Amino acid sequence: MMCIPATVFSLAEGGSSAPFSHIAERTEAQKNISENPKGEVAGQAAEIPDRAFAIALHGGAGVISRDIDPKIRDEYLESLEEAIRLGVRLLEDGAEALDVVEAVVRIMEDNPLFNAGKGAVMTNQESFELDASIMDGRDLSAGAVAGVRTVKNPISLARMVMTESRHVLFAGEGAERFADLMEVERVDQDYFYTERRHEQLKRARERDEVILDHSQDESETGYLETENEESRFFDDSKMGTVGVAVLDIYGNLAAGTSTGGMTNKRFGRVGDSPIIGAGTYADNASCAVSSTGTGEEFIRHAVAYQIAAIMEYTGASLNQAARTVVHDKLRPGDGGIIAVSHTGEIALVFNSPGMFRAAANSDGRIEIGIWEEVISIAE
Amino acid sequence: MMCIPATVFSLAEGGSSAPFSHIAERTEAQKNISENPKGEVAGQAAEIPDRAFAIALHGGAGVISRDIDPKIRDEYLESLEEAIRLGVRLLEDGAEALDVVEAVVRIMEDNPLFNAGKGAVMTNQESFELDASIMDGRDLSAGAVAGVRTVKNPISLARMVMTESRHVLFAGEGAERFADLMEVERVDQDYFYTERRHEQLKRARERDEVILDHSQDESETGYLETENEESRFFDDSKMGTVGVAVLDIYGNLAAGTSTGGMTNKRFGRVGDSPIIGAGTYADNASCAVSSTGTGEEFIRHAVAYQIAAIMEYTGASLNQAARTVVHDKLRPGDGGIIAVSHTGEIALVFNSPGMFRAAANSDGRIEIGIWEEVISIAE
Repeated sequence: MMCIPATVFSLAEGGSSAPFSHIAERTEAQKNISENPKGEVAGQAAEIPDRAFAIALHGGAGVISRDIDPKIRDEYLESLEEAIRLGVRLLEDGAEALDVVEAVVRIMEDNPLFNAGKGAVMTNQESFELDASIMDGRDLSAGAVAGVRTVKNPISLARMVMTESRHVLFAGEGAERFADLMEVERVDQDYFYTERRHEQLKRARERDEVILDHSQDESETGYLETENEESRFFDDSKMGTVGVAVLDIYGNLAAGTSTGGMTNKRFGRVGDSPIIGAGTYADNASCAVSSTGTGEEFIRHAVAYQIAAIMEYTGASLNQAARTVVHDKLRPGDGGIIAVSHTGEIALVFNSPGMFRAAANSDGRIEIGIWEEVISIAE
Repeated sequence: MMCIPATVFSLAEGGSSAPFSHIAERTEAQKNISENPKGEVAGQAAEIPDRAFAIALHGGAGVISRDIDPKIRDEYLESLEEAIRLGVRLLEDGAEALDVVEAVVRIMEDNPLFNAGKGAVMTNQESFELDASIMDGRDLSAGAVAGVRTVKNPISLARMVMTESRHVLFAGEGAERFADLMEVERVDQDYFYTERRHEQLKRARERDEVILDHSQDESETGYLETENEESRFFDDSKMGTVGVAVLDIYGNLAAGTSTGGMTNKRFGRVGDSPIIGAGTYADNASCAVSSTGTGEEFIRHAVAYQIAAIMEYTGASLNQAARTVVHDKLRPGDGGIIAVSHTGEIALVFNSPGMFRAAANSDGRIEIGIWEEVISIAE
């Protein structure tokens, strides 16, 4: 599954998506080709979908040491590639944006490397409380769940809130009762357990503090340098949240986000992931966005919606809008966003040292990255 | 406390705030006076605060029959007047915006006429689950609680989330545990009980449906016309939510919102009231907003933040921004907002037949309203 990095781009600015800036134009060109079906572009036409698509995803943002074990790093890269390739395959087959968002978030939820679904971080009570949200850019319908404990794939329950209820957000025990009425796979809390997350909780308790899943406070206090052997596997109590944004071949946008929240969380703390407008937003008129980072800051700045609003009300491009919010509104280190626009533009913008991410479009390119540089994979 | 309506304005458009459009200019004039302290405007200066202030509040929006018992109508008008006069008195005494928001929301929570605190609507389980949020325009700090059951004044707990934790939103049992650590008045669920809300729940169950606290579906199906004697007291299962927005004499903005949610709610449904960006927003650079209506629509459109974003990114006035969102983005009947801007402009905009509301400023005017027309009270 893992293939050889063909090119490594060096980005002009931390977390900007310069290597992707060509995508918008190519996508427009692609559309022109596809609107001339079975036309003069013989030979290419067979591989080209009828219309352009674009997909971006993240597996969390934060402090990611470059001194990690290369084997672990490659596991993350392989997982990101597996997820983006699933999305591309579905989109090429004509899948709709919402279905692609749900499917790609699900495989990241099922992957214990990420802080969502299996492998989620543990609360102060040694339990797991999961949040997710999804939004349909066609009509702004949306669904979200907060604090669910027995649902294997919270993104799928969030979608059912959207389609099977008149509401947007169900929380806690109530969300579990809603799940009882839905055909959704249930698991024991043990299912979510990983030894690594338990170790993180123990360390967090020793320090008697709540670790933000993406905070870099500890690195500033030297924590990253002093921790034990386990840190070779990243101090990924600071990693969090998976998210996907999609433009499908029908021109529809959708986005979804899923998380286990933060290690050692208490008081039923809800971050930005289940909050429509903060963690997730999608509007066919502008863009689809998923956020990852210090959730409280993303709520205060309504980050996902603010990017859409800047596009709508100023005519800015997706990358202009995303950079304004991530670099001018958020604080350095807060995290980042992945997004796709209604024209197929892709933005992968972060102000933390790293963000697990991947993006692809109907142009045939697939790119993945952890730190500033991007690994570009020829198909 | 209740005084004689001095003037009744007829509004040009449903729910617009035309009678208040003079306030912004007068407030600016007021500022000019106050920036010339102890100047030539002798005689007036003694009553005039050093700087302009403005306050707006709501007690819910929805279908409010004009055929109500005048006695009941007057009880609402008196309660709105009591709340706005408290705010004015505090602001004249130099209170800060956050303190005014909290104090005014609290007396509305304590008033059984409104669906917040005492008098909240009942859930499907015959219990009370309360939501509230508050935001400080100085630094975008914010706090919110969802689904609390034993806190007399949820707005005060929301403020403690803002000031006493690093987080924004605590939900359900976790929020109760946070309350255990705070000095906040606790009550039994019985405290919130009113016979009227119990009757509403029984009727909702008979109809075997969840009534949105502001939905006008039932009026369209003739429900308002056919219900029993109790309807003289409004069918205020449809009324919901109280909220306050304030500009204090120091030029700071704050907003807060509190609600019991919707009659017969299930599944831990969370509406817009505890969602920063949807139910509440405040930014000193633009405005302070509190929403009331069909919460799901207010979440999808990030209503409170969207108004601030339009002001910030287009330079629109508060009323232009608010009308764009309420009349062009929301659906007719969804509800409305109250807001004040950093320049002292006031907006009271709704697209439902009525919205309980009041507003005042340092110019000495106090205005209250239920339907389109506004009752203006000379001091």
